[in-house]
Amino acid sequence: MDLDLVNHQCCLAARPVGLPKSSDWRYTEEPVPEPGEGEALVKTLLISLDPAMRGWMNDVRSYIPPVGVGEVMRALAAGEVVASNDPSLEVGDLVTGLLGVQRYAVAPAGALQKVDTTLAPLPVYLSTLGMTGMTAYFGLLDVGRPVAGETVVVSGAAGAVGGVVGQLAKLKDCRAVGIAGGAEKCAYVVEELGFDAAIDYKSQDVAAGLREHCPKGIDIYFDNVGGEILDAALAHLARHARVIICGAISQYNTTEAVQGPSNYLSLLVNHASMTGFVVSDYGARFLEGATEMAQWLSEGKLVSREDVAEGFENFHDTLLRLFRGENTGKLVLKVSD
Amino acid sequence: MDLDLVNHQCCLAARPVGLPKSSDWRYTEEPVPEPGEGEALVKTLLISLDPAMRGWMNDVRSYIPPVGVGEVMRALAAGEVVASNDPSLEVGDLVTGLLGVQRYAVAPAGALQKVDTTLAPLPVYLSTLGMTGMTAYFGLLDVGRPVAGETVVVSGAAGAVGGVVGQLAKLKDCRAVGIAGGAEKCAYVVEELGFDAAIDYKSQDVAAGLREHCPKGIDIYFDNVGGEILDAALAHLARHARVIICGAISQYNTTEAVQGPSNYLSLLVNHASMTGFVVSDYGARFLEGATEMAQWLSEGKLVSREDVAEGFENFHDTLLRLFRGENTGKLVLKVSD
Repeated sequence: MDLDLVNHQCCLAARPVGLPKSSDWRYTEEPVPEPGEGEALVKTLLISLDPAMRGWMNDVRSYIPPVGVGEVMRALAAGEVVASNDPSLEVGDLVTGLLGVQRYAVAPAGALQKVDTTLAPLPVYLSTLGMTGMTAYFGLLDVGRPVAGETVVVSGAAGAVGGVVGQLAKLKDCRAVGIAGGAEKCAYVVEELGFDAAIDYKSQDVAAGLREHCPKGIDIYFDNVGGEILDAALAHLARHARVIICGAISQYNTTEAVQGPSNYLSLLVNHASMTGFVVSDYGARFLEGATEMAQWLSEGKLVSREDVAEGFENFHDTLLRLFRGENTGKLVLKVSD
Repeated sequence: MDLDLVNHQCCLAARPVGLPKSSDWRYTEEPVPEPGEGEALVKTLLISLDPAMRGWMNDVRSYIPPVGVGEVMRALAAGEVVASNDPSLEVGDLVTGLLGVQRYAVAPAGALQKVDTTLAPLPVYLSTLGMTGMTAYFGLLDVGRPVAGETVVVSGAAGAVGGVVGQLAKLKDCRAVGIAGGAEKCAYVVEELGFDAAIDYKSQDVAAGLREHCPKGIDIYFDNVGGEILDAALAHLARHARVIICGAISQYNTTEAVQGPSNYLSLLVNHASMTGFVVSDYGARFLEGATEMAQWLSEGKLVSREDVAEGFENFHDTLLRLFRGENTGKLVLKVSD
């Protein structure tokens, strides 16, 4: 190991108000630390960009503590072991974990998952076989409990989680309807991912689209966006519908109060439920989910698409692409070969 | 049977905008009809006043069709059989059913439930042993699934459903915290119904009250009111909390958009659920619920309180008392001895 290595880090300089600004980050250079007993040093190759990152920047009680001001920004990432002080990891192993937005990370071996790139390319381990895929898998299958013949609607359908949700709905013999922004994304959702229909919220009336494409109402609504789209979906629920609250990207950067769903009483009228979902609850079952998803991928029943940006220095701009809805598929940032 | 009997009816004259006005009703007089084959003629004694009635007046898709303009207002009621064309009912039997706001009703025998006033006074059959009690019973026990030691919060705690919910929570060895309007109602909830604590939303900060009285967070929130109180409760959920949406009386008479719960993302953070509930879903299990509730009443473990107004002509004013939150316990209107 070359002890002269420099670690580039992206730290939270200030808590963003609204959309993060470049001044909310501070790039620092530090010597690369040595791994301690039971730890490994990992060189970051790919950083995962996830809507949840916006929540981690806020100083509020949540399912995990916020990133402290001055701390390295939290991020899921994939990398290569360059030094190991644990028998379970060898130099050259590829791993994923919460490495953070930095070029090198030291982590306990137990917090890293080894991945096998002979089974799937590395980006897929941050996508369909990573948190993203597990979110879709457990959110739809375990919380939503789809039954063949039901209608599943998902917002953010061209995004990382939404695209998998719709494909899983089809695998479970459901009707899959996606909501996405723009004709290109809608075409992708139907033609590449196999959804039955897509509604372009930028050019179409979502309520009218839901009436047209869900003639029997919505049995499962998987929400990634919140705001007006959530309200439109609530207004069109079938009886005993299940609404899965996975995210609310339309609300994460608002500087006003979060827009609550005015149509929530549709839950009462339709004997329906709305359940919040955080994938970390399912940690003990990831192996089960990843095994089944890998099988579907290998059989060609599931398409995994990644949107790969490049350059450590482009972290901020790439994160903004995510919040502007400019990605199709799972957005990752390649920071090293 | 006296064929010269006159039936006084209260019909919906116009769909109310906001709080119902007296001009939204038309009082009519009709000859009392003869019961047909399999039907009975019932003389109304007590009319049940329920928040759900406001929803029935709106021309919107809901769990039952709206009352048509010109039709007798729908209402649960208790009465006495004065003529019967069905072997299952005899003159003098006391029954409950959807008799409507009228002095006499003809109904199929199968739509009437015989009640036994040697077991409980007649008003209790519109209250703890009626829809109200069943709403509390199945909403809390079946949707909420309380576990001993959990904290149950209920809004509208001095109202018909809320008062039973808190008592059932205590019977299940939970901590019961009520939210009600005014010192008198709060005293009633704690001293007469046995809640552990009550928060007066008219004079206290509800969020601060919830922090004080629910130090481990809210495990079950049973909502009858919606609006700001729902938001305060959402902000104080424990992990895996269950929110039961039974009603939203604060929103029923609004002429603006319904206030959606801004804090709904607390469901995500806390892995919590919010489930809409309409008691009619549990019709097949009413006997089970009523049997257990009657047992608790007879053992003195449950207090049933009714707020009895008088006079058929006072229907409108009594309904307004309900929407102004002026009742304590179950509000019924006595229209005949």
